[in-house]
Amino acid sequence: MTKYCDFTKAQLESELAALQSRYGEFCAKNLKLDMSRGKPCTQQLDLSLALNDCHNYVSDGFDVRNYGLLDGIPACKKLFAELLGVGEQNIIIGPNSSLTLMFDYISQCFTHGAGSTPWCKLPKVKFLCPVPGYDRHFTILEYFGIEMINVPMTQSGPDMAAVEEYVKDSAVQGMFCVPKYSNPQGITYSDSVVRKIAALKPAAADFRVIWDNAYIVHDLADEPDALLNIFDVLPEYGNEDMVVEVCSTSKITFPGAGVSAIAASANNIAMIKKRLGAQTISYDKMNQQRHAEFFKNAAAVKQHMKKHAAIIKPKFDIVATRLEKELGTLGIAEWSVPNGGYFISLDVMPGTAGQVGRLCKEAGVVLTSVGATFPYGKDPDDKNIRIAPTYPPEAELAAAAEILCIAVRIAACEKLLENAK
Amino acid sequence: MTKYCDFTKAQLESELAALQSRYGEFCAKNLKLDMSRGKPCTQQLDLSLALNDCHNYVSDGFDVRNYGLLDGIPACKKLFAELLGVGEQNIIIGPNSSLTLMFDYISQCFTHGAGSTPWCKLPKVKFLCPVPGYDRHFTILEYFGIEMINVPMTQSGPDMAAVEEYVKDSAVQGMFCVPKYSNPQGITYSDSVVRKIAALKPAAADFRVIWDNAYIVHDLADEPDALLNIFDVLPEYGNEDMVVEVCSTSKITFPGAGVSAIAASANNIAMIKKRLGAQTISYDKMNQQRHAEFFKNAAAVKQHMKKHAAIIKPKFDIVATRLEKELGTLGIAEWSVPNGGYFISLDVMPGTAGQVGRLCKEAGVVLTSVGATFPYGKDPDDKNIRIAPTYPPEAELAAAAEILCIAVRIAACEKLLENAK
Repeated sequence: MTKYCDFTKAQLESELAALQSRYGEFCAKNLKLDMSRGKPCTQQLDLSLALNDCHNYVSDGFDVRNYGLLDGIPACKKLFAELLGVGEQNIIIGPNSSLTLMFDYISQCFTHGAGSTPWCKLPKVKFLCPVPGYDRHFTILEYFGIEMINVPMTQSGPDMAAVEEYVKDSAVQGMFCVPKYSNPQGITYSDSVVRKIAALKPAAADFRVIWDNAYIVHDLADEPDALLNIFDVLPEYGNEDMVVEVCSTSKITFPGAGVSAIAASANNIAMIKKRLGAQTISYDKMNQQRHAEFFKNAAAVKQHMKKHAAIIKPKFDIVATRLEKELGTLGIAEWSVPNGGYFISLDVMPGTAGQVGRLCKEAGVVLTSVGATFPYGKDPDDKNIRIAPTYPPEAELAAAAEILCIAVRIAACEKLLENAK
Repeated sequence: MTKYCDFTKAQLESELAALQSRYGEFCAKNLKLDMSRGKPCTQQLDLSLALNDCHNYVSDGFDVRNYGLLDGIPACKKLFAELLGVGEQNIIIGPNSSLTLMFDYISQCFTHGAGSTPWCKLPKVKFLCPVPGYDRHFTILEYFGIEMINVPMTQSGPDMAAVEEYVKDSAVQGMFCVPKYSNPQGITYSDSVVRKIAALKPAAADFRVIWDNAYIVHDLADEPDALLNIFDVLPEYGNEDMVVEVCSTSKITFPGAGVSAIAASANNIAMIKKRLGAQTISYDKMNQQRHAEFFKNAAAVKQHMKKHAAIIKPKFDIVATRLEKELGTLGIAEWSVPNGGYFISLDVMPGTAGQVGRLCKEAGVVLTSVGATFPYGKDPDDKNIRIAPTYPPEAELAAAAEILCIAVRIAACEKLLENAK
């Protein structure tokens, strides 16, 4: 098939008419399809039901029902230490969401600093945000009035030349990273990028990288990506305190009722514990015990994730196949086929993502708000769309993907015709 | 028996020798007894074991295992609304600890204000602390560098004349209250005090009362105390936004794994939700569902609390009986016999509480750190001791109470002899 950019005006008009006819047929069906959020589907949730049959209340001699053990039960710390490849003394078990750990850590930096001056006392605080990225990171930063700076993603991670330049500004206090199967592109940072991050010498003394390892075991491909453990290389650069890592079982067991963990240096752990000791007596240790008992070790977690992959890989395939079939040769879109994670990132013709979102909505397909993958909800090129294929049943997903492709093509035709005026 | 103050020097010396002999016998036993924290005992924890057999995952049509429902599941909001006597729209369900709700709310006020200026931007923030009070309230305030002002407790609540005077200072931004069965004295605020609090006209525009209703259903007596619902009277004074109430099931079901709730005005709920939307996707809704299913309504919660009372009332009686027997006529101590809550507050001879704590420790009895019931850990009269009778088995508690009484008497004799020099 010819690329759209090589179409004549008449060809574009004819193409648009045909697409609008297909689009109209879908609209007439009054569908209600949702590809907006990275939510596990019901079958995935059912994989962990046996977790609720774990009824052992004594863990390492401690009654987990009662007060105490501020930083988590030993068995759960051990499990996360193994998963993250750090020492148990570098782990704090968190609440049901790593998002809360990140919010609370930024809040702590804001009120008490990451090591020296509280950020609320600084004239200006800026953060680097690899884009496209995770909207909820941006929401946290915006809540605290932290200025966000877009850093372009490359196929191997954030553009490190840009990062190295930006960190010369002492107002730049940190960076958010999703280093494995990044949200939304599914990119895993290369060893070289991880090393360059570990080696940063920022002007801000207390620069912090929030290492959101949300998809640490969320492989889809038979040959999954491997991420260099940044804590293994930080000491080479004397930067042990620069990275704070979080992860959770939200997409391993239950999104509403998982267990999260934070991994950090001794200094950072001590500062976090100081705050934590004022904030709680401990997080939910019964849930920690359920998770420790259900999984026992990291190998069991990885086995469990294969069951998830068996359910959701076909869904990714449905979307990827449809994208390839509809858009493969038109020269109007690019997308990722990730080896893991929860999303497919679709870049449509610049200036048309908003229109694609509107067309989808009118046809009953809810996408992640267009622009959400950028700070302040503003995609400067109006081109990125995050597709979340895990939640809808396969038949619905197939229909939603087809409508999306039609919308992408309609918006491109419209744009090209407009440009041809 | 004669009061110690009427003893001659020789009588005091003889009394001290006899007490030291009794004390020595206990020391020789190498006991290890703990009356330090308000922890439920194992039998109390067992009362709620069936909560873990609640395996219904769909609540009001919503799969509680997945993301969503930021402010809690409807069934749980309904339960807490009934318990607290407010509308469901005034409830947000929190994490496993109301302490976290209080910390997070103060943190929110610090970074974003309670309505206008963020407290971190103010030159000085002060808080009123009824004393003796709950050490963890003081820890939160100290973490944020908020200056604490002691307000004496009376038998009907905080000294309101003092409060009314203090709130004329615009730096005074709030007050912590445990209005029912106060920690540690077990005092329930009178209707008149509740009304005076509701009627406050503080100089600070965004003055906030943190109404920590920790012992709302924690009755011990057959005729329990009744607390006026402050939300019923706040509108009379146009002060709907002044009070933020919290409670939890920590001492109803499981201290490590309960559910907490916050009750507040529409304005405050909106501000809290704004922060919450950046901090989490929702708290643990599976645990909310377990609690909603286990209890169903407020009446069931109150029935459940009678089972708790049956276990712990005899423990309170053991301590009260021992205190009366050993100290009743000596004129050296006063204490509360509360109708509910978790503590007995003991005031020993001024200047001797620290020595009592040391003597207890040497004899193997751990008390709440002496001074902990005051801001900065400083009891100006060195006289208050918080006794937590719920956790130890009855035999241990009896021994601990006896040792405590001996220590109180020894310290008093020593003091009187020292004064007689």
